[in-house]
Amino acid sequence: MTTGVRRRMGVEERRQQLIGVALELFARRSPDEVSIDEIAAAAGISRPLVYHYFPGKLSLYEAALKRASEDLASRFAEPHEGPLGARLLRVMRRYFDFVDAHGPGFSALMRGGPAVGSSTTNALVDSVRQAAYEQILSHLEVSEAPARLELVVRSWISLAESTALIWLDGRRIPREELEVKLVRDFAALTAVTAAYDDELRALLRPALGKEPADGPFGDLVTRLIALAS
Amino acid sequence: MTTGVRRRMGVEERRQQLIGVALELFARRSPDEVSIDEIAAAAGISRPLVYHYFPGKLSLYEAALKRASEDLASRFAEPHEGPLGARLLRVMRRYFDFVDAHGPGFSALMRGGPAVGSSTTNALVDSVRQAAYEQILSHLEVSEAPARLELVVRSWISLAESTALIWLDGRRIPREELEVKLVRDFAALTAVTAAYDDELRALLRPALGKEPADGPFGDLVTRLIALAS
Repeated sequence: MTTGVRRRMGVEERRQQLIGVALELFARRSPDEVSIDEIAAAAGISRPLVYHYFPGKLSLYEAALKRASEDLASRFAEPHEGPLGARLLRVMRRYFDFVDAHGPGFSALMRGGPAVGSSTTNALVDSVRQAAYEQILSHLEVSEAPARLELVVRSWISLAESTALIWLDGRRIPREELEVKLVRDFAALTAVTAAYDDELRALLRPALGKEPADGPFGDLVTRLIALAS
Repeated sequence: MTTGVRRRMGVEERRQQLIGVALELFARRSPDEVSIDEIAAAAGISRPLVYHYFPGKLSLYEAALKRASEDLASRFAEPHEGPLGARLLRVMRRYFDFVDAHGPGFSALMRGGPAVGSSTTNALVDSVRQAAYEQILSHLEVSEAPARLELVVRSWISLAESTALIWLDGRRIPREELEVKLVRDFAALTAVTAAYDDELRALLRPALGKEPADGPFGDLVTRLIALAS
């Protein structure tokens, strides 16, 4: 029926197009520097038509953030196969791919830009953190985390966020180095807590006992022992 | 001259009183749940008089945040004497004293409550982080931090923030335990980077070489070696 005729986009299709255009612009400049006029121009439609699909910039921003959050959360999914250190390293690579692709938008969101503090924005950021937390527990083969394990995992997630933000601010350290560093940080922070907590040590032994000596966890132990002596 | 007469407060004195009253209320409930009416009532003055000293609630909130920021930053000051681990532990105690005293206000600020994202608020939070960063460098006896040391210190500061926030959410782990944990986390994260970085190892040797075997750093090393074997 539409052959030879320039097809008009449906409502949902147009909304998805505008979200994609907005995300591309937010990947190059902070969202508070991007106007609805620019988004309209990049999408090839008029400014009033943008408002037909999104009542205001905040609504478009939140829709874009929702898509980006789902994208990021999906990158945490990793098969339950092979050593834990190697699995976490693959997730860190995909995490930095995301951060790299969304630099200014990611910084603005995490450092306090437009719409920060809105309940929708906070809920989306929290949903990504929760997805990361649940993935990590599932790989550690733990269903109910004791308070100290929950603290280690959640505070490491915030360490990963701040590491990514510091990286974006000047990119002075190669991202590949930081991906491995975050895996080692996870091992070190878990070990610090496990060193003083019998329950946690027993809980993590099945998962961590399978780590190879030449993986990122094993190599770290060897080097730390050398450093201490 | 004022003997026997109820003295009227000067402008600056009244402003300071209102800031103090606001901080006391924000220590018990999130700032967005505290009204100007309540602040006026607690200060024993009328609502219009509050607006005489502060044009709006945001302005009073920012003034309260400024005082709290200066208070917190002043707690990072620590004499350059004795082992580093013990110094950092004393700072962590004062940090948790602050967090304990300002719970709901601290959570609301760091999680995204009222005025989050305002440039004044962001600048105050950043100024506290910068004060913490500079104090730590001075204790490590480093004047110009290489990129990897800056990353370790700044990302540990964010770890301390998230640890405090998680503690406030239910207080399921004794704060004394978390104060020591954060000292050990600092040692562990620094060691993870130093284990792969000759420059950092050489830079930190003078300061860390003075740590006693029975301090929080030394004890951690002993336990980690036992854990690894």
